[in-house]
Amino acid sequence: MTTSLALQAARFREQNSAGRLLLPNAWDAASARIFEEAGFTAIGTTSAGIAYAEGYRDAEQIDRDAMVRAIAKIVKAVSVPVSADIEGGYGPSPADVRQTVDDVLDAGAAGINLEDTAHYGGTAALLGVDAQCERIAAAREAAARRGVPLVINARTDTFLLSLGANVDERVALTVDRGGRYMQAGADLVFVPLLVDPSTVKRLATQLPGPLSLMALPGAPPAAELFAAGATRVSIGQMGMLATLGSLKRISEELHQYGTWASIENTFYGFAEAEALFSRTRVATADAAP
Amino acid sequence: MTTSLALQAARFREQNSAGRLLLPNAWDAASARIFEEAGFTAIGTTSAGIAYAEGYRDAEQIDRDAMVRAIAKIVKAVSVPVSADIEGGYGPSPADVRQTVDDVLDAGAAGINLEDTAHYGGTAALLGVDAQCERIAAAREAAARRGVPLVINARTDTFLLSLGANVDERVALTVDRGGRYMQAGADLVFVPLLVDPSTVKRLATQLPGPLSLMALPGAPPAAELFAAGATRVSIGQMGMLATLGSLKRISEELHQYGTWASIENTFYGFAEAEALFSRTRVATADAAP
Repeated sequence: MTTSLALQAARFREQNSAGRLLLPNAWDAASARIFEEAGFTAIGTTSAGIAYAEGYRDAEQIDRDAMVRAIAKIVKAVSVPVSADIEGGYGPSPADVRQTVDDVLDAGAAGINLEDTAHYGGTAALLGVDAQCERIAAAREAAARRGVPLVINARTDTFLLSLGANVDERVALTVDRGGRYMQAGADLVFVPLLVDPSTVKRLATQLPGPLSLMALPGAPPAAELFAAGATRVSIGQMGMLATLGSLKRISEELHQYGTWASIENTFYGFAEAEALFSRTRVATADAAP
Repeated sequence: MTTSLALQAARFREQNSAGRLLLPNAWDAASARIFEEAGFTAIGTTSAGIAYAEGYRDAEQIDRDAMVRAIAKIVKAVSVPVSADIEGGYGPSPADVRQTVDDVLDAGAAGINLEDTAHYGGTAALLGVDAQCERIAAAREAAARRGVPLVINARTDTFLLSLGANVDERVALTVDRGGRYMQAGADLVFVPLLVDPSTVKRLATQLPGPLSLMALPGAPPAAELFAAGATRVSIGQMGMLATLGSLKRISEELHQYGTWASIENTFYGFAEAEALFSRTRVATADAAP
């Protein structure tokens, strides 16, 4: 039996295979609908953005259930495939990852990002390669058991944590981890913080699998990252943080002057906002007057 | 016994009594924190903004529990008093309103907005004056039973629904409803869509209670509305809609050019975003590695 989720995952898989895939990352239903309206054919989630919207710091301060509920709302709001950022899987063991993947499949996710950094106990450190491979295998197995060709974007934080004595060592570490992750069942190797085209080129050449990157302020345009060998580029929490910056301006003008010029400057219409959403509550007996 | 919620409500009550109260309206924890950081001493919620963030249209398409959960997250994120927009109370009867008020008091709200429009069954119409007075009295009683001096902002949609044959009739209807609502236990009379200073002046003079307004794109600055006699001005969903407009620009640039100039233009720093939130998960036995 091919479920509609299996079809969404297959559709997302094709987009990843085609390459030059630019993914915006949503943090709520409204941001997801705005991205979909702009024409994006798939949407990622941002765990940091969701954490902030819920009132938490980034890095698994929010718990699995709250994150899954937020992902489910995003999936429900759009018709394109959604890739769920599940951070480190909400627990260190393969069983933790399996549970999280089961939950985000229930939520309708067509792909996941899974990190190899553990944040438990307030410190960040890379998990062992073998341990991370078992976790990736657990994710693959959980999806396969349900017949879903889930796209697994295996993140390695070698660049984020500045591992190795220099860039050569960092590239070598990344190639090693990436190769092992692909063997364990990953579809892409995701290397956040890397946006330097020459290093992207070296890594893309050596890595035995497609390379996934995350844009940052100051990063070269997506076209340059694709030309250097990246298969996929997402924007992480950048979209969420840019709207926080806009809101900061709005709120400062409002507080200082009691005016709304900066609101008027980027206003999205009342009727246009209503038109973004089709979900309406069915009148039920106890809701009728 | 005076609870901390009673103290927050008393604090918010003083702010309303002092007048010239400008309230920004939040839709999630992050927007609430941005407003608090800008210096606002109290924050409202926007039911439309929360509905959009959750993937619903405005006007009670979202259910009571989902709305209360969203309000609770906003209260938890800030230390200033929060006034909860509870729309029409999530049901037409005084018992419905009592239940909703009980729930938002549990969530920590120091004030409420309660509408006299019923949306049940897909149409919008004003409830009868007596019926609405019973609902306001139910809200007051629910708060009093818990010793909370909840600030009740009683909304009447006479202007929003363009009732009466002309402005004179509309003002008379509003004065009549407003007076009755004050007798029933309201603290302020909230008249959305009214922003014309001369009409504000007439209404403020005739109304036997403080007047609360909502800003709109094109409305005169808050100072003019206060000068005309308004006690309180909120921004409704305007803040949320302005961030949707910013995000629309961001996503169109991203989709069309694969660049992030408009993100960089209003970027809120990574570290600054983390610093907005103090809620961190306490490491528990099953979360430790």
